[in-house]
Amino acid sequence: MNIVKSELLYEGKAKKIYRTEDDHVLLVEYKDSATAFNGEKKAVITGKGRLNNEISSIIFTRLHEKGINNHFIKRISETEQLIQKVTIIPLEVVVRNIVAGSMSKRLGIPEGTELKQPIIEFYYKDDHLGDPLITEDHIWLLKAAEPNQVENIKSITRQVNQQLQQMFATCGVKLIDFKLEFGLDQAGEILLADEISPDTCRLWDQETNEKLDKDVFRRNLGELTDAYEEIFNRLGGM
Amino acid sequence: MNIVKSELLYEGKAKKIYRTEDDHVLLVEYKDSATAFNGEKKAVITGKGRLNNEISSIIFTRLHEKGINNHFIKRISETEQLIQKVTIIPLEVVVRNIVAGSMSKRLGIPEGTELKQPIIEFYYKDDHLGDPLITEDHIWLLKAAEPNQVENIKSITRQVNQQLQQMFATCGVKLIDFKLEFGLDQAGEILLADEISPDTCRLWDQETNEKLDKDVFRRNLGELTDAYEEIFNRLGGM
Ligand SMILES: Nc1ncnc2c1ncn2[C@@H]1O[C@H](COP(=O)(O)OP(=O)(O)OP(=O)(O)O)[C@@H](O)[C@H]1O
Ligand SMILES: Nc1ncnc2c1ncn2[C@@H]1O[C@H](COP(=O)(O)OP(=O)(O)OP(=O)(O)O)[C@@H](O)[C@H]1O
Ligand SMILES: [Mg+2]
Ligand SMILES: [Mg+2]
Repeated sequence: MNIVKSELLYEGKAKKIYRTEDDHVLLVEYKDSATAFNGEKKAVITGKGRLNNEISSIIFTRLHEKGINNHFIKRISETEQLIQKVTIIPLEVVVRNIVAGSMSKRLGIPEGTELKQPIIEFYYKDDHLGDPLITEDHIWLLKAAEPNQVENIKSITRQVNQQLQQMFATCGVKLIDFKLEFGLDQAGEILLADEISPDTCRLWDQETNEKLDKDVFRRNLGELTDAYEEIFNRLGGM
Repeated sequence: MNIVKSELLYEGKAKKIYRTEDDHVLLVEYKDSATAFNGEKKAVITGKGRLNNEISSIIFTRLHEKGINNHFIKRISETEQLIQKVTIIPLEVVVRNIVAGSMSKRLGIPEGTELKQPIIEFYYKDDHLGDPLITEDHIWLLKAAEPNQVENIKSITRQVNQQLQQMFATCGVKLIDFKLEFGLDQAGEILLADEISPDTCRLWDQETNEKLDKDVFRRNLGELTDAYEEIFNRLGGM
């Protein structure tokens, strides 16, 4: 396939999305920028785009191998990948295995508290509203998705959680929580999309609980790319 | 019954709770104070205590008549009532018929939008955390209530909504939303508790949409007691 990077369709906080010659295929370029707290904290971090592109490519590939359909087509350069175009469902689907971050603050439960069962939360994907936590009734009200789509999303999300937990456990990493996005493909089928990277997962070293994810940036805990490089290496990316 | 107002057990933002001679009975004194925004805005409003005591007494009495069990025993003075003691379940149960207030802000839906179906939301009753919206999974995690209790609460809540909607419709008032609290009685049964008043309901005039509830205070729309007096009168309290 000869890829022509065409018109820039969307520039987000972490990625640029380009049209390609194929109407059903988009090109994603991962950017060297980090943002947190709904864009309030920002930085340029050289090497981050490459690391997230590589890590996301590895993870999506492994999910494909495990039978979990997703939008990833192929890595085409250090910072770019091709993906299947979908219509994004405006939900951020968060899975939590261990309490951290906003859940800890919201409920007053200490970070690090293990959950007996993973918890799935839905946030309404709207930067202007600050991506608020919503209930399933709110999903219907907002017409963000239909009941059967939400059931489908929850089922895929639980499978992704199992696969990611395994994948990370074998390289000494605890999967604390992560965020997924889903879209509808040409056929109207739910498809896992966006990215899976240390930007969208909380990853702690199994032994030391050292944070190897975007919290390093949010909380000024050191060099972000050292943490991401560590994840990349452990996933066998080197 | 000879009521002896004994030890002050709890002073809240809106009410004082006293022990009585009967271990299963509490005395509530409604205070002349208004608070909003989790206590950030405060005022003494002469007459408010009386109005909320009277209105809550009328409403709880009518709910009793309609077969909806609740903690209300009887009004004993202009500002006081006797209630059955319960162990409060730390949930604020909010019912919405029309979008307003925090739901409008959270979801970006204009105030006044009618909901096809009433929506029930749960907030975790914890001033320190700012009474956050929570999902049912959070309820289990926090051990705030058990699944069958939540089902029971939802069912009672829907009945209360129907009765209140009727009660207010007959006096030209639209019931926009309201907050309920529930407790467990001696037998461990769910019982409707706390208060039902213009402090805990959004009430709009059917014709003019004039606000006849605590929003008058929150948004500086005039004399709070005029609005509450109007509700008291319309409920036939005069
Ligand atoms: N397969 C796909 N097809 C179409 N859009 C996609 C696909 N996968 C991800 N997207 C969207 O592309 C954008 C990626 O950009 P980026 O992640 O930088 O956005 P962002 O700044 O996080 O903003 P947003 O809040 O929209 O995610 C996101 O809006 C994401 O939902
Ligand atoms: N039947 C009952 N038995 C025991 N406690 C009750 C009963 N009904 C209501 N309560 C509790 O009594 C208190 C009433 O006081 P008030 O409403 O002023 O409190 P508040 O300032 O709103 O604080 P809170 O956040 O605790 O409600 C509340 O904590 C309420 O939950
Ligand atoms: Mg994004
Ligand atoms: Mg109260």
